[in-house]
Amino acid sequence: MTDLALRAWAYLSRVAEPPCAELAVLVGRVGPVEAAERVRRGQVDDNLAHHTEARREIDRVADDLELLARRGGRLITPDDDEWPMLAVAAFSSVAVAAKPQGRPPLVLWAKGPARLDETAQRAAAVVGTRAATRYGEHVAGDLATGLAEQDVAVVSGGAYGIDGAAHRGALAAEGVTVAVLAGGLDIPYPAGHSGLLHRIGSNGLLITEYPPGVRPARHRFLTRNRLVAAFAGAAVVVEAGLRSGAANSAAWARALGRVVGAVPGPVTSSASTGCHVLLRGGAEVITRAEDIVELVGSIGELAPEQPRPATPLDGLSDAERQVYEALPGRGLATVDEIAVAAALEPTRTLAPLAMLEVAGLAERHDGRWRIVRSSYSRRGQL
Amino acid sequence: MTDLALRAWAYLSRVAEPPCAELAVLVGRVGPVEAAERVRRGQVDDNLAHHTEARREIDRVADDLELLARRGGRLITPDDDEWPMLAVAAFSSVAVAAKPQGRPPLVLWAKGPARLDETAQRAAAVVGTRAATRYGEHVAGDLATGLAEQDVAVVSGGAYGIDGAAHRGALAAEGVTVAVLAGGLDIPYPAGHSGLLHRIGSNGLLITEYPPGVRPARHRFLTRNRLVAAFAGAAVVVEAGLRSGAANSAAWARALGRVVGAVPGPVTSSASTGCHVLLRGGAEVITRAEDIVELVGSIGELAPEQPRPATPLDGLSDAERQVYEALPGRGLATVDEIAVAAALEPTRTLAPLAMLEVAGLAERHDGRWRIVRSSYSRRGQL
Repeated sequence: MTDLALRAWAYLSRVAEPPCAELAVLVGRVGPVEAAERVRRGQVDDNLAHHTEARREIDRVADDLELLARRGGRLITPDDDEWPMLAVAAFSSVAVAAKPQGRPPLVLWAKGPARLDETAQRAAAVVGTRAATRYGEHVAGDLATGLAEQDVAVVSGGAYGIDGAAHRGALAAEGVTVAVLAGGLDIPYPAGHSGLLHRIGSNGLLITEYPPGVRPARHRFLTRNRLVAAFAGAAVVVEAGLRSGAANSAAWARALGRVVGAVPGPVTSSASTGCHVLLRGGAEVITRAEDIVELVGSIGELAPEQPRPATPLDGLSDAERQVYEALPGRGLATVDEIAVAAALEPTRTLAPLAMLEVAGLAERHDGRWRIVRSSYSRRGQL
Repeated sequence: MTDLALRAWAYLSRVAEPPCAELAVLVGRVGPVEAAERVRRGQVDDNLAHHTEARREIDRVADDLELLARRGGRLITPDDDEWPMLAVAAFSSVAVAAKPQGRPPLVLWAKGPARLDETAQRAAAVVGTRAATRYGEHVAGDLATGLAEQDVAVVSGGAYGIDGAAHRGALAAEGVTVAVLAGGLDIPYPAGHSGLLHRIGSNGLLITEYPPGVRPARHRFLTRNRLVAAFAGAAVVVEAGLRSGAANSAAWARALGRVVGAVPGPVTSSASTGCHVLLRGGAEVITRAEDIVELVGSIGELAPEQPRPATPLDGLSDAERQVYEALPGRGLATVDEIAVAAALEPTRTLAPLAMLEVAGLAERHDGRWRIVRSSYSRRGQL
């Protein structure tokens, strides 16, 4: 890419609040250099002028690119190999385009060793409320660690609460984690996450469609959420109140054709209310990292069956069970008594009794039968 | 009903382990009195003889009926008005009849002031593991109290853990609760629930298909579970491990055409694992008693919307929000600065600013604007 093109992309990135459909159309038609030139001169139609008029005379391109270079970042544009073509393709659906902000990013400001295009091919968004509980943070961290261990990148929004726990869990397992920011790369937000965001930028990837200096604002968080969803194969909400940005990320994920998952939590915890609403709406029930790998991984990468506790009664036939249950809780019983209790003819209890004796579940004394103690204590749990 | 018929039903209740399809067929063909007579004499075909041979000479009818009378109980038979015709009708489906034990009860031994036929028309089963956590018992009690307050009877199995908490919750709200037992009415099981079962028998209903003296056994718990499901419009599992009888109740409920619900819980709690498996399988997400009332109540008895917290930003137009978000976090900004931050033409920020001022969200000082503090603290939660 020429320096001229790079400078044009940087200019275009700031001149309109992203995403700006009218600007994207112009760039698509005449290319970035010519588009930047026309916008700068005010030679655009009224619709686009409406979006660019306030900022068209602001030119911070040199400063922006210098700051980016100094911090070791890069501007990823549709001209670059790293442009996440497949992830961005999800915006081409008519339903998505009909939504406010339902547009792909124009360019992406990035910092970090991970490659966005590759990362997005095997990634899960793990998101949730800032007002997380210890339970939520614990689960978010565990899921992220499990994903990292299975080479799934963890995408989130860098916020306090669930987002932060997810990023940390991935970093702890030396996995790749991507934070999609709602402001410039030079504005660590929230301030308390400066250190965490620095680690993400050094080991994973910081991504934003906003040029340096842009301050996060509520509408930018909502706009940003569509990219969190776009850059992952599934979006998992760990904790969310009824009024949480995480529900917005989930809505974007659904609109973009991504799978939506939600982690159940105590019904007594308002931090899980949004998750339960999502589950009612058909979101996948997520309880382990494997559940997510199954959603974002290759075909056939199915979660293993959960292990079930085994009991010594597992292998018994129906008749053996029936006889076993007919043995008295304490004391001894004759074959006839057992037969009555089991509602079987006496002769039909003999083979089951023999099998139970072999299995160590029953024993004979003076021609009468009793249950073996360890089994009896198990029955106490019935 | 004649005394002869009553005695015949009581005899038939004990002579084969219930449910016995062959016995039901004979009773249906020749009536209880003649059926009892033939069984007693051994004048039945080999299939039925196989089920009745061990007990046909046992006659405890007089003792059973005397014990029942002494305890103020009753034998509910298909000849009685109280026979839960509609609930039992669910067993007529071919799919249910194909399941082992997939048969209606022959008769029901009962104690308590509630009428089974009426109760079953507006009832929910609330069931779960004996190894319940404090969370599970709390939720079970809360749900049952809520159901009782909305005149929904709470059906359960009388066991430790979830069952007990559900019964207690209903009793606490002076509601009707039904315990379906896996043994005789005279055998309180578990022994630690003697007092609770006595209260249920005095205020609600104890029900069992087993005659007096029959001891609960594992296969009887599983057989009993079908009646817990049958006598309610929905079965809600509050907590269940992977290997819990509650999963069996849920399977019966599904087979009988009842709605199955499950309460989510912490994914870190093995006591909720079975619930999450049920939710994956399509069970309804239950978080409040209202959710259950909606499932078992009359048409139109919909759960009220969960209240959502309101924020002063709720009523704002898009432009007003955009301008609001463009106000600096601290300090003052000129209209031009706000216009740049919001990517709006300066003249288009004036009306929104005026509205924000009216709403108490922004204020003007010397021609510049700032956000109002209470709103600022709200933005801090973004």
